[in-house]
Amino acid sequence: MEDGPIAVVGIGVMGGSLGLALRQRAGIDRVIGYDPDPRAREEAVARGVISEAAPTLAAAVADVEAVFIAAPVSATVAVAREALAASHDGCLITDVASSKAGILDAFTDVERERFIGGHPICGSERGGVENSREGMFDGATWFLTPSDQTRPELYERLHHLLTRVGARPSAIAADVHDRILALVSHLPHVMASALILQAADTAPRGREALRSAGPSFQDLTRVAGANPPLWGDILTANADAVSDAIDAHADRLREVSEMVRARDTAGIRDYFQRAADERSRIHETPETLDEPHRVIVAMPNRPGVISEVATALGHGHVNIEDLQLRSGVGEQEGELSLIVSGSDARDRAVSCVRTLGFEVHTEALS
Amino acid sequence: MEDGPIAVVGIGVMGGSLGLALRQRAGIDRVIGYDPDPRAREEAVARGVISEAAPTLAAAVADVEAVFIAAPVSATVAVAREALAASHDGCLITDVASSKAGILDAFTDVERERFIGGHPICGSERGGVENSREGMFDGATWFLTPSDQTRPELYERLHHLLTRVGARPSAIAADVHDRILALVSHLPHVMASALILQAADTAPRGREALRSAGPSFQDLTRVAGANPPLWGDILTANADAVSDAIDAHADRLREVSEMVRARDTAGIRDYFQRAADERSRIHETPETLDEPHRVIVAMPNRPGVISEVATALGHGHVNIEDLQLRSGVGEQEGELSLIVSGSDARDRAVSCVRTLGFEVHTEALS
Repeated sequence: MEDGPIAVVGIGVMGGSLGLALRQRAGIDRVIGYDPDPRAREEAVARGVISEAAPTLAAAVADVEAVFIAAPVSATVAVAREALAASHDGCLITDVASSKAGILDAFTDVERERFIGGHPICGSERGGVENSREGMFDGATWFLTPSDQTRPELYERLHHLLTRVGARPSAIAADVHDRILALVSHLPHVMASALILQAADTAPRGREALRSAGPSFQDLTRVAGANPPLWGDILTANADAVSDAIDAHADRLREVSEMVRARDTAGIRDYFQRAADERSRIHETPETLDEPHRVIVAMPNRPGVISEVATALGHGHVNIEDLQLRSGVGEQEGELSLIVSGSDARDRAVSCVRTLGFEVHTEALS
Repeated sequence: MEDGPIAVVGIGVMGGSLGLALRQRAGIDRVIGYDPDPRAREEAVARGVISEAAPTLAAAVADVEAVFIAAPVSATVAVAREALAASHDGCLITDVASSKAGILDAFTDVERERFIGGHPICGSERGGVENSREGMFDGATWFLTPSDQTRPELYERLHHLLTRVGARPSAIAADVHDRILALVSHLPHVMASALILQAADTAPRGREALRSAGPSFQDLTRVAGANPPLWGDILTANADAVSDAIDAHADRLREVSEMVRARDTAGIRDYFQRAADERSRIHETPETLDEPHRVIVAMPNRPGVISEVATALGHGHVNIEDLQLRSGVGEQEGELSLIVSGSDARDRAVSCVRTLGFEVHTEALS
């Protein structure tokens, strides 16, 4: 089956890289781009990151199978709504914003049938279409936040597109996503900026000393002050999770400071030892490429189920290499066929799906 | 003049690298090593990081011009005192511990005539003599904390030895050193460990998500849990400065969290912008190699003055390429001759020294 056209709305480094990857990796012929800035549109066509530019958002999305919105997080809901209104009823709308619950909450149930939130965990220090790379998504986790209203066939289409651009789609509950991102991305940026400002304020005469500071200071401040307008938006959009994460971190620091003030050497050693243990646990080698297995889930032919199954597998750390739907007729049971790598992933998948109450069986494929 | 022998006490990666650098870079013939662990002594001789091993600390230091103590910070005072007792009256004793005020305070005025605190800003992730590198100190700032009692000729000797192993000696007040190190090294280690533990506790099911966390999380946690026994000692030895730095950081985080909770996007942007500005200011290109100047300071022939002048220049960010004393007779004025690079360093040096009330004149050397 030939692929229909796809739209990319917002052509900075993320939209541009996505355009390139859709054209070069996924082999999509028509990638229609729109950006409010006419120069970005011209640049994108000149660089071949899109196959054609559209003069308006409505024109870009009128006849496509999927719309990727790569707008600033604060503009995403408005742009997505415009895309929903201007696209046909079978068109999938997704985004790349770094927080998900607020965006999802802004939509009605009907809108949520076609809008599926997404967030690729990758990026570039330098913005702008000129820094686009077709390999941007290679091996990157791409979080998806399907909801009870998500149409299964649109989720399937999105999953396919993402694997074709090189990403590893992984479903996750929107609020869990936001808490994790607050912790692993938003809080670290705040810590880095707070540390550099503390250093600058505390030792104005110590610039020379700061410059000769060891690798730990360099590591901790590398992301300090990266793209202030963007990060103002990002933190505001995820305000509750971010402020909770910051407060929790401040509490943890106070505990250490009390231990240090009390000269509790054994306690400090134990603290660092636990950190060492957790760090190596987190960095354990991921599963190697193993023989493929098919996991077949019998599921009622209605929305909601796809979200439930995909999210459970995402939280169970099952990487879905491929996903295929076979719909039943009316209320009849359909089938969801999942390809996973290795017997360990297969067993976890089976256990996740059984816990949800669905029937499941497996086939070895090698 | 031929160099006399030098002792290195404690032969881990730091003592071993120092031994190598003294032999290979400074061309010292006899570098006598002592370590309480006989295997470390044997290994050090076998690898050539020292020219000979001594069976006891007293034997190692009996006949040397300088003793470098590379022991754990918690053992430094006791080891230094043993070295002071076993060495002759013209022998310099110095250390490499990462906090300085507590160590200095432990000594009597008489002991402080020969003990000069030091701290090279470099190191190795892997400990042990087998990881020694002769280039460890190349271009590294090596902080020195001379005191009112410091004998000028011993400071001069130490300064020479350090430049010969490749380091850039820089005098600093012990309490300022400890506050700066708390900020640029000890606090970052605490932050890294606190973040990894927060991540591990908050999202036990999110390991997969954590592993796919972006570069900011990797940067911020790289030093988490590094060498727990060592860091237990380091933080305890600098407990007041470290706990102050941690508390100040927690306060700063609370301010950001309030701003985020209030959705103060403009405030957050401004915060990141200030961090961006400070970060680039701190990373401004250091002065390029410029024409050498000699700065000649007329100074009374007594201890205290060398510390005063060197520390003022250190705080004034004047890098002293070379330092030479010409002592007067009795109370008569002697001369301190300093080589600095570039007219800017020369002018800052002159201004620092004049502020202290000493007469100064300069000569261009190129």
